Parts: sequence; C-alpha cells; structure tokens
Amino acid sequence: MSGTPDPSQSTGGRIVISVDAMGGDRGPATVVAGLVRSAEINPEIAFILHGDRAVIEPLVARRRVLAGRCEIRHAAGTVRMDDRPSQVLRHGGDTSMWSTLEAVRAGEARVAVSCGNTGALMALAMLRLRKLPGVNRPAIACLWPSRGPVGFNVMLDVGADVRADAEDLLQFALMGASYARNGLGVARPRVGLLNVGTEENKGRPELRAAQELILAAQETGNYDFVGFVEGGDIPSARVDVIVTDGFTGNIALKTGEGTAMLISEFMREAFAKSFLSRIAALLAYTSFRRLQKRIDPRRVNGGVFLGLNGTVVKSHGGADATGVSAALKLAFQLARSGFQERLSGRLAAAMAPVQDAAGRIAGAPARGSTEGA
Amino acid sequence: MSGTPDPSQSTGGRIVISVDAMGGDRGPATVVAGLVRSAEINPEIAFILHGDRAVIEPLVARRRVLAGRCEIRHAAGTVRMDDRPSQVLRHGGDTSMWSTLEAVRAGEARVAVSCGNTGALMALAMLRLRKLPGVNRPAIACLWPSRGPVGFNVMLDVGADVRADAEDLLQFALMGASYARNGLGVARPRVGLLNVGTEENKGRPELRAAQELILAAQETGNYDFVGFVEGGDIPSARVDVIVTDGFTGNIALKTGEGTAMLISEFMREAFAKSFLSRIAALLAYTSFRRLQKRIDPRRVNGGVFLGLNGTVVKSHGGADATGVSAALKLAFQLARSGFQERLSGRLAAAMAPVQDAAGRIAGAPARGSTEGA
Repeated sequence: MSGTPDPSQSTGGRIVISVDAMGGDRGPATVVAGLVRSAEINPEIAFILHGDRAVIEPLVARRRVLAGRCEIRHAAGTVRMDDRPSQVLRHGGDTSMWSTLEAVRAGEARVAVSCGNTGALMALAMLRLRKLPGVNRPAIACLWPSRGPVGFNVMLDVGADVRADAEDLLQFALMGASYARNGLGVARPRVGLLNVGTEENKGRPELRAAQELILAAQETGNYDFVGFVEGGDIPSARVDVIVTDGFTGNIALKTGEGTAMLISEFMREAFAKSFLSRIAALLAYTSFRRLQKRIDPRRVNGGVFLGLNGTVVKSHGGADATGVSAALKLAFQLARSGFQERLSGRLAAAMAPVQDAAGRIAGAPARGSTEGA
Repeated sequence: MSGTPDPSQSTGGRIVISVDAMGGDRGPATVVAGLVRSAEINPEIAFILHGDRAVIEPLVARRRVLAGRCEIRHAAGTVRMDDRPSQVLRHGGDTSMWSTLEAVRAGEARVAVSCGNTGALMALAMLRLRKLPGVNRPAIACLWPSRGPVGFNVMLDVGADVRADAEDLLQFALMGASYARNGLGVARPRVGLLNVGTEENKGRPELRAAQELILAAQETGNYDFVGFVEGGDIPSARVDVIVTDGFTGNIALKTGEGTAMLISEFMREAFAKSFLSRIAALLAYTSFRRLQKRIDPRRVNGGVFLGLNGTVVKSHGGADATGVSAALKLAFQLARSGFQERLSGRLAAAMAPVQDAAGRIAGAPARGSTEGA
C-alpha cells in the first residue's frame, strides 16, 4: 500500500470515491464497468480502487476514460459472501474491503463503496471508522420507490442491528432526515415511525416513547414528524423518511422486493399465455420499459451506512454495471453535499438535550425502561 | 334474541356460518350480496345473520336463494371502525359483532365471519370464546399469493398481538400447519420461521429458541420445518406456512399489499401514457385480468383468528360482495373439515411435552428467559 497522497492533487480537484473492486458476485470486471459509466457521465468523479492489482490493473488500463482518475491499491485478500463478520474482523487486514474503508479513515476519499458481504462490511466499518460521537447504533438506510415528488422514500434501519430502543429511533430519524436532505434534495423531510397502526396508543412501548422524542426534536432536526405510519405507507407520498428497527426494516425491505419480483413473474406468465397477449406485450414494450424503470432495483442500488465517521455505500451483491454506477452516483452526491459534516453537526445539536435528560432522570422512559427492548 | 334451535334442523342439515351484517365500510347490503353469491354456488351453506332487523330483513327477503337458509338475529348496536376495543368489551353487549360470536359460543354456528373492526373483534372473541387450553396468544393468519402449488401461503401472526415468545411461535407453527392442512389441503405443510437471515445464529434470541422447539415438534405437529426464511421467501414455493410475531407479520403484510398497489398504479400510468400503449393495454385485457386474478386481494380475503374455542374469519373492512363471499367460502371449508377439533387435538398433543419441560426446568429457554421479549 502506498502513503497518503493529497487526493485533490492526484485526481485533479475531483471528488474521490474509495471502491472495493473484489466484492460482489460478478467480480472486478463489473465493478470497473460501473466506474467507466460514472466517469463518462461525471467529469468531477475520481476513484481509488482496491483489490488484486494483477487482476484489476489490466481492466483499468483498457479504459481510456479512467486514465489519471483511478488510483489502484493492491490488496491480496478478498472477503467472500459467506465469510463470518467475526472472522473478517480478526483476519481481514489484507482484504480489499479493509483497504477500501482505510482510504476513508485516512481522509483520502470521502465515501466508500462496496458490493461485498453486508455483515462483514458493517463490522469492519464499525471497527475502522468508529461510531459518530453520541450515536448508539449505526443504521443502514435504503431508498424505496414511492409516489412522492422525488420518486423515492428513505427507510432505516434495514439491517445494521436487530434491535433499537427509543433513543436509537430518534437518532435514525435525525440521520434519515439528513440523508433525505443531502442525498435526495428534500428541503424539510417528513418523518414517520413504522408501527402496526396510526393511533398514538398502538404498538410496542419503545415506539410510544420514541414518538415523543422524535416529535420534540423536529426543529433541531429540521424535519416534520407525521407520527406513526404503517407498512402500506412506506411507498406513500405522505412521508419521506420511514424510521424502524433493523429487524422490522429488513423484513419489510425483503418483503417489498419479493412482492415486486412475484408480480413481475406473474406478469410475464400472463403475457406469455396466448398469441394475442404476446402481440400485446410487444406493442406494450415501451410501457413495460417505463414501468420497469420506475421499479428497477438497480436504480435504487445502494444502502447507506449512517452514524459512522465516514459514509459507506453498500451496493447489492448481484449488482451489474448499472447498479454499481448508481451506487457511485449516490456516493458522489453525498460526498459533494458535505453530508457527513452536516449530519454530525445535526446529531450533536439534537442529541445533547435528550442525553442530558436521560442522565438527569434515572430510569427515564427515553432510555431506561426500554433499554434492550 | 331467540333460544337455541338445533342448527341442522332449522337449516336442513347445512353447515351454518354466523355472519355480522353491520361490520365493514360498505354496510349490510354488500354483506347480503356476498351471502347471495355463496348461497348460489354452494347448496350446503346456511347463515345466521346479525344486525338491525329493520335494515337487513328487507335485504334478505328480496333474495329467493336465501329463503330458509338465513336466520336473522336482531342486534341494535354496531361496532364502528374507530371504536376502541376496551369500549366494545364494556358496552358492546347489544352489538351485531357480539351476537355473531355468541352464536358460535352457543354451538349454533361453526364459524363466525365479520368485516368489522379487527381490534374489537379480537378482543370480543378472546372474551366470549376464550383461548384454547394451552394457548398463550391467539394469532391472526392470512393467505399470501405464492408460487407454491396451491397458489397461497399461510402467514401468522399478522396482528393479534405485537409480541410473541419462543413458545408462542411454536404454537403459531402448530396452528398454521393445521390451518394449511384443513383450509388449503396441504397434506404435510412446510413451516418456516421469519428472520433477517437464514443462518442458524441470526436474529433475536427468542427466534433461536423457537427454531429448536418448532424442529422438535415436527412429528407431533405433522409438518416439516424448513428453518429460517426471509421476507423475500414469504411468497416462495419452498414454504407453506410462515411463522412470525404479530408486529413483524402485520408490517410485512401491509408492506406487501402496499407494494402490489404501487406497482398496479405504476402499471396503469405506464399504459395510459401514449396512444400505442393504450391499444396495447386493450389487446392485453385478458392477460391483465389473468394477472389481476392471481394477485387480487379479494380472493384471499379473510384473516382467520386461531387459538380460540371457535373459528373466526375476519374479512377486510372494505370488502365488496366478492370479498365477503371469499371469506364465507373459507369459513365453510374450515367448518366442514372439522378444523377446530383437529387443531385443539394437535395442540394438546404437541404442547404437553414443551410445557412439562418448562415446568420442570425453571428458567428454561423455552419460556423463562425470553418471556416478554
């Protein structure tokens, strides 16, 4: 590994993204193809690419658009999709994933992108980047196709941790709102708390405690709290950010993806049934394309890890070049907006009174009684 | 209210379903229209219909197919969709919902059907029918369109209670498997436990405890346990019954419904875009109908309350005549199969060793350590 060059020098003033070449099911050629797409569209983007130099150097050398915009960092090891996070923490020092995060930790790149093993990436990111001051649990935020004006809602946590207490949920609200402002350009995001009903007395105790904390932090957090929302509201236009624990969020995300896949399979079967319906499908080709574009998971490819000293974008393991490029675009947008600095400022301002109160009143419902619930 | 006539006498040996005429958003005319549909198709079905006699008697009298097959029970009160369950428990004695459950309690009807307020219906059913011996928490089971051979999977709990410990989850597995056998005709259902990953060490502690209990009860319960499943597996062909707590299940159900609605809206918009795509949509009419039929929520209309001394089918509040008729069909099927008796026998056999063990070993993981988690 080389020293610490000034990124703005080596890359001509561009915004540098640190990219794991070896993660993902499709291998480094797909990752490099994604880099090429982004570099072609976006003159301001540059990369540090981590992986086996013997494999990735020829791939990069072949693409003229990457010349002078893609530094290669050799890393001999690769984190596999089925490696246990605990293993990677102990023995992963030589991996491309480790090296990718290292460049963010050292300040050489603003954001890290990897298609690799989510559990290992989160564990390594926690270890190397560390949590932001005052954050109890980092979260993974995803984008959800919606009826709203920007076409997507933010949901978090979708799987960083299976638990979240009231104070964690408040932090998710703050982080999600900040992400919606900087990543999606929503000036004052509307935040909803996921529950089994919209009445105030519904759901689990930590949710009732969280709703008060989230309501109280509206102004410091620069968002509007719309109260409880239900599963059916996740893609709705009445909310921009959906807050939930990582267990529920992960189940909801995969249920939504599974339902979309089921329907598109059923649709294909329905249109393949008869000669007439095949002709109809042919005529409807552009309509189908239009529909597919709106619900294409590759366009929303990129879960973002929030609550760490550095932003990490996790791309789908099966992402193709379009998917990788979508993740790079998101990473670029977050880096350029100064998201990381804004988020940590907002968190510090909003959490101070809550944590003071929790310290003063022992056993306060904000933290005490719902801890570990 | 009249006395307790022998149902098989007054209804000519038919299977009697107790129906709440006043629940639901569309009012008694829609419920009666649903009765008519079912009566036309099914000569073996009969009804006791509960509600305001002045309103429902003319509706029933007009339909010849209901003559001699629909007894009317007057109930002056109606449970509204926004009534609190606690209010209904205290003051709901004169309501059509109460009367509907009463007929099942008294043995006059085999199954109850209502489109009314879910929370109130569950609370009243718990109070009047009482839990089956050995059941800690009743559950609501729903049908989910799937790739499987019968076209539907069973998921429970989808909202009876926001919590479930390991032993509750075992009971859900037993009840769901019994429902799949008797309601869907799946000889030996495959049961999966919903989690955020399929590895054995994933998820919350009560899930890891539950997986051992559910595995151990495979033979007594007459099902195969496939282990953990994820949100994307809910509509899959590798499982017939998905077990989860009522919080997660409710969120998953509403997320799935919301996603399906979003896609069909996007689809309509995509096909309304241009002249060509409108023609295509016209040509594709039968294909669309075919697709719609497979994912039509009205066909799977009917959550079933399990774990009580009597079966209750909860139809959607917004159900139309087709929806009501689907719920009646399900109720009929469960009544004819002797589901209630089979379920209680199966539960008694499977729970005895577990509850013995929990009694012997104080603080056993089966119950002690996960209580209330």
